[in-house]
Amino acid sequence: MNIARLPSYLEGVWRTGSGEGTPVADAVTGETVTRVTSEGLDLAAAVAYARRTGLAGLGELTFPQRAAAIKAAALALQERRQELYELSARAGATQRDAVVDVDGGIGTALVYASLGRKGLPEHTLIVEDDPVALGKGGTFAGRHILTTPHGICLQINAFNFPVWGMLEKLAPALLAGLPTIVKPATPTAYIAAHAVRLIVESGALPPGAVQLVSGSVPGLLDLLGGQDHIGFTGSAATADRLRSDPAVTRRSARFNAEADSLNCSVLGPDAVPGRPEFELFADALVTEMTVKAGQKCTAIRRAFVPAGLIDAVCEAVQARLAKVVVGAPGADGVTMGALVGLAQRAEVRGAAGRLAAAGSIVYGDPRKVEVVGADAERGAFLSPLLVRVDDVARPEPHQVEAFGPVSTLMPYGDVSDLLDLVARGAGSLAGSVVSYDRDFVRQVVLGAAAHHGRILVLDRDSAAESTGHGIPMPQLVHGGPGRAGGGQEEGGLRAVYAHLQRTALQGGPATLDSIIR
Amino acid sequence: MNIARLPSYLEGVWRTGSGEGTPVADAVTGETVTRVTSEGLDLAAAVAYARRTGLAGLGELTFPQRAAAIKAAALALQERRQELYELSARAGATQRDAVVDVDGGIGTALVYASLGRKGLPEHTLIVEDDPVALGKGGTFAGRHILTTPHGICLQINAFNFPVWGMLEKLAPALLAGLPTIVKPATPTAYIAAHAVRLIVESGALPPGAVQLVSGSVPGLLDLLGGQDHIGFTGSAATADRLRSDPAVTRRSARFNAEADSLNCSVLGPDAVPGRPEFELFADALVTEMTVKAGQKCTAIRRAFVPAGLIDAVCEAVQARLAKVVVGAPGADGVTMGALVGLAQRAEVRGAAGRLAAAGSIVYGDPRKVEVVGADAERGAFLSPLLVRVDDVARPEPHQVEAFGPVSTLMPYGDVSDLLDLVARGAGSLAGSVVSYDRDFVRQVVLGAAAHHGRILVLDRDSAAESTGHGIPMPQLVHGGPGRAGGGQEEGGLRAVYAHLQRTALQGGPATLDSIIR
Repeated sequence: MNIARLPSYLEGVWRTGSGEGTPVADAVTGETVTRVTSEGLDLAAAVAYARRTGLAGLGELTFPQRAAAIKAAALALQERRQELYELSARAGATQRDAVVDVDGGIGTALVYASLGRKGLPEHTLIVEDDPVALGKGGTFAGRHILTTPHGICLQINAFNFPVWGMLEKLAPALLAGLPTIVKPATPTAYIAAHAVRLIVESGALPPGAVQLVSGSVPGLLDLLGGQDHIGFTGSAATADRLRSDPAVTRRSARFNAEADSLNCSVLGPDAVPGRPEFELFADALVTEMTVKAGQKCTAIRRAFVPAGLIDAVCEAVQARLAKVVVGAPGADGVTMGALVGLAQRAEVRGAAGRLAAAGSIVYGDPRKVEVVGADAERGAFLSPLLVRVDDVARPEPHQVEAFGPVSTLMPYGDVSDLLDLVARGAGSLAGSVVSYDRDFVRQVVLGAAAHHGRILVLDRDSAAESTGHGIPMPQLVHGGPGRAGGGQEEGGLRAVYAHLQRTALQGGPATLDSIIR
Repeated sequence: MNIARLPSYLEGVWRTGSGEGTPVADAVTGETVTRVTSEGLDLAAAVAYARRTGLAGLGELTFPQRAAAIKAAALALQERRQELYELSARAGATQRDAVVDVDGGIGTALVYASLGRKGLPEHTLIVEDDPVALGKGGTFAGRHILTTPHGICLQINAFNFPVWGMLEKLAPALLAGLPTIVKPATPTAYIAAHAVRLIVESGALPPGAVQLVSGSVPGLLDLLGGQDHIGFTGSAATADRLRSDPAVTRRSARFNAEADSLNCSVLGPDAVPGRPEFELFADALVTEMTVKAGQKCTAIRRAFVPAGLIDAVCEAVQARLAKVVVGAPGADGVTMGALVGLAQRAEVRGAAGRLAAAGSIVYGDPRKVEVVGADAERGAFLSPLLVRVDDVARPEPHQVEAFGPVSTLMPYGDVSDLLDLVARGAGSLAGSVVSYDRDFVRQVVLGAAAHHGRILVLDRDSAAESTGHGIPMPQLVHGGPGRAGGGQEEGGLRAVYAHLQRTALQGGPATLDSIIR
């Protein structure tokens, strides 16, 4: 069968690249879903269209008007989210996984719509502060404004959250007035493309506000410079490559990276078996290992538990993992889906092997998994794998990331040892502390804060409402130092401000007033 | 005569590098002032000392205590600033120039001391916001804290402001708790080194808070990573090189660049001869051309005037330039000093030649200048040069920066043309509009804001108190998009926040309270 090539949405039209394209397989069945190619597409024209038509269209709207457009787009997606769930299943996502991506993305866009409506002025610029007197006579002052750059936003996304990853970047960029070109990851580009189709069909956004390139973007960075913004989610290696581009190093395009990291979760010494926190820790670890089959940049990769509790934790987690049913999304009883593809599985197996060399696999078999409703080899299925590493001085657990249902369980001694271990991750997106001992929590949070973009405290009092270790919230910053990319997304209106140019104005107070009126 | 090598201040001790070193000539006489070498110095030990001793010492101080230490250091410099003026004269700086650097730097440090005392908590962390409810039951919330990274700050400075450039980076870094290694530019390293000596002798700062490397820093970036901060001022080419280093691209060290740019000043059509703004414009242009002999990253490089006024402006500026007396700082009647050295003069002459090829030199001779109190060839003297370019479509005036007493005068038609020309600078640190027509001012400021870190409006009402086009103020952001490096320094407490790690905390409200107590 001749599988259709996935189109791109450029200059207001769906256009299909030429050539064979890269085939994308169904994660469950191995059948080809689509072929992805941008060959022959005129990306320079797309950039010019964004700069001209997109920028002008958004520029005619005030912040609250942009917020209303974003809300309309999000509601259009919500209306037809079932279509996105169905496509997500082909990428291995269970309903629970798809909700994180699809509903999570829509929810994020709606939060931004609300922030834009309530928190930004009926204007196209933001006056950031009151005037600061710069002279004693009151005739000279300074203040800051934030305005829309004369540029565009290019977002380069990871395969794991084709909808959320797009919307959490799109919403603040559009609020800021920046037209966006979306470049999804090839393995799930068909999901992102469908989401863009739903947005386009809604007519919610002005022409040129969103474009989509299915496939690679050769030469696109050559067209970007100091007025443009590049938002990236993915591996540290790709972040390195993009950030080394002259668009960033020479022309100072803004660059934000959100990279996978070796996130930790810490169990407090108070949380012995029988205490609620012990159960919460084990539950959270299994959740993080199995949601999206562990393909989350925020997932717990390193679980630190008091040395005296490691056997008990190990047993508790093993018992929970034994209840995980791997299989085709939607098949009877399935609680964990497939990885995104066979190449990804091979990579995760390799990484798991390196981790196992530092200790031992105490749950699961990287080569074998019982699968419901699908073929274990044709689909990209993998058993959850718990690796126990007692020699915590080994480098592997702190450096090797298995981007799948894989976590390493390690013992720690005192808080100081623990903080050293945490720091060995060299920067993370998210950490968590599961304890009901406030002194312990305080020591760990303050000792680990510099290495984290976000830290969750989990205990019996907050568990019922807690959004969990792995879920970034639009109100809070997402991103972390070092290995996590050094960037920052979301965080409420901070993300909008990060897309705007801050300019200090100086002059007579009345003149400044007349400028910002 | 065997001129002494300039020592470095490392691990709390003044140490002298080995080898011949790079000789640094007196800008006025050509005599060798010192030789600069870091050969054989143990920079890895210096980094380790900063990480250990410096970080711990600053970490024991609250923000206001750090502010008090900065104030004490600044006052120690103020006490002995005459010594810095005298050294500055050897680098070609007149008293007026030295005041900009020395007093400007001290004033900036004092402003930061005041901001730290009044604007930051008696604590070592900052709670940035109120809790945001993340559940309806009120048991789960999020908020942000800012904490000191477990890192250091490396500052790499330009030659033109050895004192100010150091202090404007040092003050926010120290407030943030980050120990700093200063790497001054070789041609004026002896001035920066003396300022460090005065600070050290004051005993104001804890051990390890400041170190100084006189000379190059081979391998130093290899030691920096995601917890570290690199602050750079200098050329776009060096910014490119530093930002391409794996310390930044791979390990996500924070990097802030403030690069020279083709700053513009705009005369309004209302400001015809006879109006105060006409005079203010001509005065400001000549000030910017001659202070520091035009060696200011913020200096006006492109002066845009209404086409109908260009002859009048040309004459007014020529008349003022004719009164400039070039010569040895301190010599009778001298109003403009020397460039920093002969190599710099050669470079400026080359750039001026390229600019002149696009138009014509209407004041000054790049090869000849009358000099008071010194030898015109042995010292790095250069006449102020005004280049008129009527063909504004030529690329040179928008791309070639002559980092000396050189500006290009160009005509514009309507506001739309003007804004196109402004944008051709591809991003600037500072711009100015000189006009008493508020509509014109508003159009230009809003149209040019996205290309500028700072825009000054100058008119008759604010002129008396105006700090002028070229002077960054610590209360306002300094830095600009694109060619200007895409960074941001100063801006009051923003610069302190930029050195801290922001972490989102999530948990029960009472737990969050107990963490930040």
